[in-house]
Amino acid sequence: MSYPVEIPSTDIAVSALELVMQETAPAIMNHSMRTYLHAYFAGQELEIPVDSELLFLACILHDIGTAGKYNGSQRFEVDGADAAARFLIGEGLSEAGADLVWQAIALHTSPGIAERRTGIVQLTRLGVRADFGGRRYGSADQQSIVERALPRLDIEAVLANTVIQQALTKPEKAPPASWPGLLVAEFGSNPHPPGTRSPVF
Amino acid sequence: MSYPVEIPSTDIAVSALELVMQETAPAIMNHSMRTYLHAYFAGQELEIPVDSELLFLACILHDIGTAGKYNGSQRFEVDGADAAARFLIGEGLSEAGADLVWQAIALHTSPGIAERRTGIVQLTRLGVRADFGGRRYGSADQQSIVERALPRLDIEAVLANTVIQQALTKPEKAPPASWPGLLVAEFGSNPHPPGTRSPVF
Repeated sequence: MSYPVEIPSTDIAVSALELVMQETAPAIMNHSMRTYLHAYFAGQELEIPVDSELLFLACILHDIGTAGKYNGSQRFEVDGADAAARFLIGEGLSEAGADLVWQAIALHTSPGIAERRTGIVQLTRLGVRADFGGRRYGSADQQSIVERALPRLDIEAVLANTVIQQALTKPEKAPPASWPGLLVAEFGSNPHPPGTRSPVF
Repeated sequence: MSYPVEIPSTDIAVSALELVMQETAPAIMNHSMRTYLHAYFAGQELEIPVDSELLFLACILHDIGTAGKYNGSQRFEVDGADAAARFLIGEGLSEAGADLVWQAIALHTSPGIAERRTGIVQLTRLGVRADFGGRRYGSADQQSIVERALPRLDIEAVLANTVIQQALTKPEKAPPASWPGLLVAEFGSNPHPPGTRSPVF
């Protein structure tokens, strides 16, 4: 099934996009936009009611914790969720909207949990999974356009490498029962160039 | 600091307690009650406003996913969250209350995320951490009474063993970036009697 794509162009959406372009690697920028498109198609196909602007904000900012500027002492998902919520409130988003974006970002690597929430929390997770080998939504044509318009640029390596490097200097960023913890453990037992295979979600 | 303890005795609280006594191992029953007490003390000490009955329901039911009766195809935290929410709605709890309990249970093994939520989601996590070697709240006397009144009964082994056994027959219950996934991976690389050390949270 093919769905018309809706990309929000409100001031806040444009500001968020600019922030991601400025602060993260091109591979992460492209992945974040692909994640939105996959998530948007998932919402259409699964008939999950959702605010497209909020979904865009969550997806486009979901890996903002990889930015050096926001690399604090928490796992990158939560440092990113905090940075996104602060930024969006500064841009005028409601506290309730910012909290939903916070949850979507904080939970985007939590298997079996985010999928069971609703709205943007669920769809952001489905978008991330779709971009890393999971079930895809939308027509084959649309999926093909998404990949051609937004090249992957070795996203698996870029993302895993960044999360691992952040955690090697600050181990508290990678608690064992977490995705960063899993990446660090795998890197420790086999320090291949990280990301030579898809991140496991 | 010592705090008077408040143990809810409403019909729904008693029913939940009876369910846990009936469906889970004594070690898990005692751990669940200790978790409530630690969580309650944490709420007092950190001045986190909370509904004691909801906190009790979340804590007492947080490991209900270990019950054979509720062993479905999801990670035990989420099978447990579903079982708890269904049970509590059947007992007359509001949908909103049941969803909060769902979140508290589903997230109780999610390091760095549950701690950053509010109310019963945050406190259930702090209670679980306190019972597995993390920071404790309340006076030393109170902590000592909790342990003497509710013996540990080898909870680390009982809990880890149950989660691992469930996942060995249904691998989908242990996605890699999750606490069950971590337990299964550690068991696979060193099949010691599981639980000979504290679960890593």
